[in-house]
Amino acid sequence: MDLDEKFMRLALDEAFRASERGEVPIGAVVVAGGRIIGRGHNLVETLTDPTAHAEMQAITAATAELGGKYLTDCTLYVTLEPCPMCAAAMGWAQLGRLVYGADDEKRGFSTFFESRRPAEGGERAEKKLLHPKTEVTRGVLAEECAAPIKKFFQNRRN
Amino acid sequence: MDLDEKFMRLALDEAFRASERGEVPIGAVVVAGGRIIGRGHNLVETLTDPTAHAEMQAITAATAELGGKYLTDCTLYVTLEPCPMCAAAMGWAQLGRLVYGADDEKRGFSTFFESRRPAEGGERAEKKLLHPKTEVTRGVLAEECAAPIKKFFQNRRN
Repeated sequence: MDLDEKFMRLALDEAFRASERGEVPIGAVVVAGGRIIGRGHNLVETLTDPTAHAEMQAITAATAELGGKYLTDCTLYVTLEPCPMCAAAMGWAQLGRLVYGADDEKRGFSTFFESRRPAEGGERAEKKLLHPKTEVTRGVLAEECAAPIKKFFQNRRN
Repeated sequence: MDLDEKFMRLALDEAFRASERGEVPIGAVVVAGGRIIGRGHNLVETLTDPTAHAEMQAITAATAELGGKYLTDCTLYVTLEPCPMCAAAMGWAQLGRLVYGADDEKRGFSTFFESRRPAEGGERAEKKLLHPKTEVTRGVLAEECAAPIKKFFQNRRN
């Protein structure tokens, strides 16, 4: 079985936990050396905390588990493309690899331009929300990851 | 006394608390109706959590205090220009007003371009890390806010 799919299914389990609480169903896991070291699901409504995204919970859990603030040798799996807040958090953590399921056309970090502005001395500086060394894989179980989110918003409109 | 300066001095008190713990001295307070409803200082090393910036702590404290996830009628004071993670968190919280002290030339959110990419149908969509309605005031007690941060990094190099 494909390892990325295996771990994305565990992120989907986390998304299911979010939906059980009436939260937008998004889940994440952080993996190091084939082992899950952090889990998280969206808890924005439960905690009335706009920063309580699945990825933030998973990053905080993983760094607590490791006892260090970097996730250089880790892969974070998340069912939806991260927003700029979560992407920048991954940047601070120097995440090794990011794997996500469905694209987020509205708020996904990839819909924000990577910065490119003149730095001092006339040079051009390139900046990314993610760490420049973070590898990115998108589209793993994309439809399975998107389905519960679509269903959530359809139900809310009815 | 200037109200912005008054609250920035309280954010500076928070920065001092961070420095007492050996953290990069950055502090933040959230104010609503003239009252502080959330405080925070940088706790990245103490919590070994790369997301534990002063602003994130203050936002989480303020929304917990309010029992809601929006900070529409609030002002957040922070001693250093927020990074993209914190700016995007303020975006999710629909923060009413952001006041910051010193500029962060390296990692400040304003050094990241606001996105502008073609949306579906050929239109151009503009996006910001902050909420589009958030008012921004910069440079309040800028030198006083920058001084402890400069000192921190000078000491670390010695």
